[in-house]
Amino acid sequence: MSRYKVLLSYDGHNYHGWQSQQRDITIQDTIQEALSIIHKRPIKIVGSGRTDAGVHALNQVFHFDSELNISEDKWPLAINTLLPKDIYIKKVEQVNSDFHARFDAIGKKYRYYLNMGEYDPFMKDHVYQLGYQLNLKLMREAVNIFVGKHDFSSFCQNSYEEIADQTREIYGLSITHDHDLVCFEFVGDGFMRYMVRMLVQTLIEVGKERLSIAEVKKMLEACDKKACPYNAKPEGLYLVDVYYPD
Amino acid sequence: MSRYKVLLSYDGHNYHGWQSQQRDITIQDTIQEALSIIHKRPIKIVGSGRTDAGVHALNQVFHFDSELNISEDKWPLAINTLLPKDIYIKKVEQVNSDFHARFDAIGKKYRYYLNMGEYDPFMKDHVYQLGYQLNLKLMREAVNIFVGKHDFSSFCQNSYEEIADQTREIYGLSITHDHDLVCFEFVGDGFMRYMVRMLVQTLIEVGKERLSIAEVKKMLEACDKKACPYNAKPEGLYLVDVYYPD
Repeated sequence: MSRYKVLLSYDGHNYHGWQSQQRDITIQDTIQEALSIIHKRPIKIVGSGRTDAGVHALNQVFHFDSELNISEDKWPLAINTLLPKDIYIKKVEQVNSDFHARFDAIGKKYRYYLNMGEYDPFMKDHVYQLGYQLNLKLMREAVNIFVGKHDFSSFCQNSYEEIADQTREIYGLSITHDHDLVCFEFVGDGFMRYMVRMLVQTLIEVGKERLSIAEVKKMLEACDKKACPYNAKPEGLYLVDVYYPD
Repeated sequence: MSRYKVLLSYDGHNYHGWQSQQRDITIQDTIQEALSIIHKRPIKIVGSGRTDAGVHALNQVFHFDSELNISEDKWPLAINTLLPKDIYIKKVEQVNSDFHARFDAIGKKYRYYLNMGEYDPFMKDHVYQLGYQLNLKLMREAVNIFVGKHDFSSFCQNSYEEIADQTREIYGLSITHDHDLVCFEFVGDGFMRYMVRMLVQTLIEVGKERLSIAEVKKMLEACDKKACPYNAKPEGLYLVDVYYPD
C-alpha cells in the first residue's frame, strides 16, 4: 500500500464545498467516486482542509492510499479522465506513509478577488462583482490590525467546543489592485471557518467608509462571536497554496 | 414609438446561441422574454447577427421598438433586473426609427482565445484548452492568405442558396500571445456562419505543422464547401465589436 499526495485545482461554483455530504454534490465525493472506480472498492481521501460552497482552489492538497501499481506520472490522467471538467488533478506524488494532508499542513495562502468596476458576466462565478469604488488607502491601513498572532474568535464561525484555541497567526495580508480588480492575499498558519471571508467583508466595510479602523480593532479585541456581522460572498475566494515542511 | 440600440455582453456557454428557437434556450429569446414582461406584450428584437451555441459576446448590438417612456439611462437596469446573470445590458441609446442593427452594420471584430499550456478548469468555457504548443511563426505567415477581399465559400457553412455572394473582406487578422494564451483577432466587413472558427482551426492545423501554407492557399482558392474540414470549438470565440457608420 502506498500513500499519495495530490495537488489539484477546482472551480467550486457548482459544488457544495469540499467536504463529503449525504445530500449535495461536493468536491471530495466527486474525487472519491473517481478513485473508487479505478480501485473497484470505496476509497476515502483526506484533504488539507475544507473549502465552502462556491469557493475555488488553485492548489488544494489531499492524500489517499492505494495498492495499485500506477506510476506518479500516470496517476493524473487516470483520475482526470473520470472527473468532471471543473476539477483538475495537477500532480500526484508518492510520499511517506505517515504523511497527512491535514495534520502536516503548516500554513495556507488564500486570495479574494473583487471587481469595483462595471459588472462582468464572464467573471460572475470567479470574482465578486461589487460594482463601486472602495477607499483602498483606508483598507490598507486596516489590514495592520489583523497581521500577526491574534485570537480571531470574532472573525470565524467555529464554536469554542469545536476549536478551543482560536488564536491564529497571519503572516501577511496585502491588498493590491489592477484597475478595478482588487486582490486580497492572506498567508497564515491556518484559517478557521469563514475567517478569510469575514475579514475581507470587514475590510470592504472600511473601504466603504462605513466602519472605522478603531471599530475594527474593537471587533477583534472583543473575541465575541457576535462582534462581526460580515461575510464576503464565496465566489471571490481561492485557496492558493497549502504549505508543508520540506 | 421609439427605437433603441442596445449594447450588451453575454457568456454564451449556457445558451444554444443567439437566434430564437422553438426548443432550446437562446440569448434572443431570453432578452425578448424580459422585454415582454416590461411591455406586457410580446417584443421582438433584431440582433446585428447570430452567434452560435457556446459563443460569447463582449459588445453585441440589437434594436427594439418601445412605446414606454423610460429614459436611456434607466433602461439597462430595468432590463438587467429581469435577465439571468450571464447576460448584461451595458448601454441603451435612442436612435432614428430607420436604424437597423443587422442591415446597418458595416463591420465586426471577433477574437478567439486558446490556451497552449496546462489545462485551466476556470477557463474551460471561455478559452479553448488546446494543451500543447503551436508554431505561431508559421501561423502568422498563413494569416496573410486570408487578409483582404476573398471568396470565402470554402470557409463557411452557408449554402449558395442562402448567401449568393460569399465574398468578404478581412481588414485585419492578428495572432498575439501572452505566455500560453493565444489570441486571434479578426476585423472585417462581415463573417458568415462558422467562418471565424473554420479559419481559426485551419490556422491551428498550420501551427501543428500538419497543413502547409500552400495547402491553405489551395483551400481558399477552391471555393468549395468540402475543402475545409476544420471548425474550432465555440468556447474560445467572442464577438467583440459591431461597427456602424458614424
